[in-house]
Amino acid sequence: MFVNRRAVTIEWGDCDPAGIVFYPRYFAMFDASTSYLFSAALGMTKFDMLRRFEVIGYPMVDTGAKFFIPSKFGDVITIETQVTAFRRSSFDVEHRVLRADGQVAIEAYETRVWAARHPEDPDRIKGVPIPDEIFTKLSAGN
Amino acid sequence: MFVNRRAVTIEWGDCDPAGIVFYPRYFAMFDASTSYLFSAALGMTKFDMLRRFEVIGYPMVDTGAKFFIPSKFGDVITIETQVTAFRRSSFDVEHRVLRADGQVAIEAYETRVWAARHPEDPDRIKGVPIPDEIFTKLSAGN
Amino acid sequence: MFVNRRAVTIEWGDCDPAGIVFYPRYFAMFDASTSYLFSAALGMTKFDMLRRFEVIGYPMVDTGAKFFIPSKFGDVITIETQVTAFRRSSFDVEHRVLRADGQVAIEAYETRVWAARHPEDPDRIKGVPIPDEIFTKLSAGN
Amino acid sequence: MFVNRRAVTIEWGDCDPAGIVFYPRYFAMFDASTSYLFSAALGMTKFDMLRRFEVIGYPMVDTGAKFFIPSKFGDVITIETQVTAFRRSSFDVEHRVLRADGQVAIEAYETRVWAARHPEDPDRIKGVPIPDEIFTKLSAGN
Repeated sequence: MFVNRRAVTIEWGDCDPAGIVFYPRYFAMFDASTSYLFSAALGMTKFDMLRRFEVIGYPMVDTGAKFFIPSKFGDVITIETQVTAFRRSSFDVEHRVLRADGQVAIEAYETRVWAARHPEDPDRIKGVPIPDEIFTKLSAGN
Repeated sequence: MFVNRRAVTIEWGDCDPAGIVFYPRYFAMFDASTSYLFSAALGMTKFDMLRRFEVIGYPMVDTGAKFFIPSKFGDVITIETQVTAFRRSSFDVEHRVLRADGQVAIEAYETRVWAARHPEDPDRIKGVPIPDEIFTKLSAGN
Repeated sequence: MFVNRRAVTIEWGDCDPAGIVFYPRYFAMFDASTSYLFSAALGMTKFDMLRRFEVIGYPMVDTGAKFFIPSKFGDVITIETQVTAFRRSSFDVEHRVLRADGQVAIEAYETRVWAARHPEDPDRIKGVPIPDEIFTKLSAGN
Repeated sequence: MFVNRRAVTIEWGDCDPAGIVFYPRYFAMFDASTSYLFSAALGMTKFDMLRRFEVIGYPMVDTGAKFFIPSKFGDVITIETQVTAFRRSSFDVEHRVLRADGQVAIEAYETRVWAARHPEDPDRIKGVPIPDEIFTKLSAGN
């Protein structure tokens, strides 16, 4: 599978009064990491991807994370992200957060659905088949 | 167990370009819901609780959520929160998000550790025993 | 002018490692306060307002705030919000944050534009005239 | 004055239902930009800076921004940041956001206070003199 790695500097505003990252911020980082993964594999921004494939995105249906080591502002972490499974209209993603010393700080998973506006009710969204190009490019090695 | 219910109005700034809640915002709402649960059961703010019990908080060690129905800005959801298990220095929390029509929109779980500064290294944190008062008041009915 | 007052409890996740509110969070509170002002005056959610008036919102063009007294998690503040001027397609808003003892903690201003999708380029937005109903209801007393 | 420039990719989670950046997110970016400016000039993280100078940070006392051009997810902006004035215990910062085509999208200002815990009441904070090293390194050219 295609893997994306990116360095993230923990910012003051990511941290709580205990001085460590407020964990919802990690989910925002993971959401961005999934976008960077797709952008890197497809060679286009998420904005252009949504237009091209006429979808509204890949909303989350199930996610979770285990936190082993906290990080504080000024720390630089690496987030490794890859798709681990594709189904007809949904897919799984895994993220690993590595500290500078290589230790795994967090492991997270996601299940997302490839979704479009519902054809009969634009207020609703529905899963649609994942295009072959997405499957092929995200499944390939780097 | 003591249960806390609170209404949350979904705000414009909670939502993403698909017009639905950006899911990391739910984790921020859940974190606040856990605090409101403790505040309601103990009769004090989290600020006062941390001082009284000489801890830095209850950092997250494991959390996840399943998302069944999206919400959009202007929607009012109810978040129901309770502790489901206490151990020596950690505890489990469950959140259920209910829509106005009573449907369950999200189910989430948390495992948190009751934590203090490490006595030998103030940069680290360590689990400490959960006080009886916390156990008793959060375990009681409403 | 119509004034909206709402109580906001400062949450752990609103605060930074200094233990006080991370100031960008105040701007998110102010944005919500402007929405609550409109919702209260018009009797509809922002979602319904955008549909009814066929606009994309009221993007910010100029905002600022002076911070006199910090707040910490557990504090309950009151945010008072009102429109102070209407022009053809823009308007000014003022927010005052009051602490429990009545002291003014923050004063903020906003200039926003009443905006729709550009008719010839849906990627752009343009100011459009503020409807009479908006002007009338927000200008009336409570 | 020392100037820091950094590229920021606008993320899906930075944007609102209108598809453009939710403006409080810009203030979070600016807060980080001020930290990156200090880190670059001093050669240390904000975490290390706070320890070294025994302060709790540089809380905001006055900030504002004018928004000329909106940005959307996938856009890459450049934020240019510099201190424009130093006083005994406060200083002014300016940020300019430039789009890829060089156009100025946002201009922002900040006045911050160099602050420590109050010696007689650790719940309060007070301005303290800005160290010479800070003044010298931030005032120097790059």
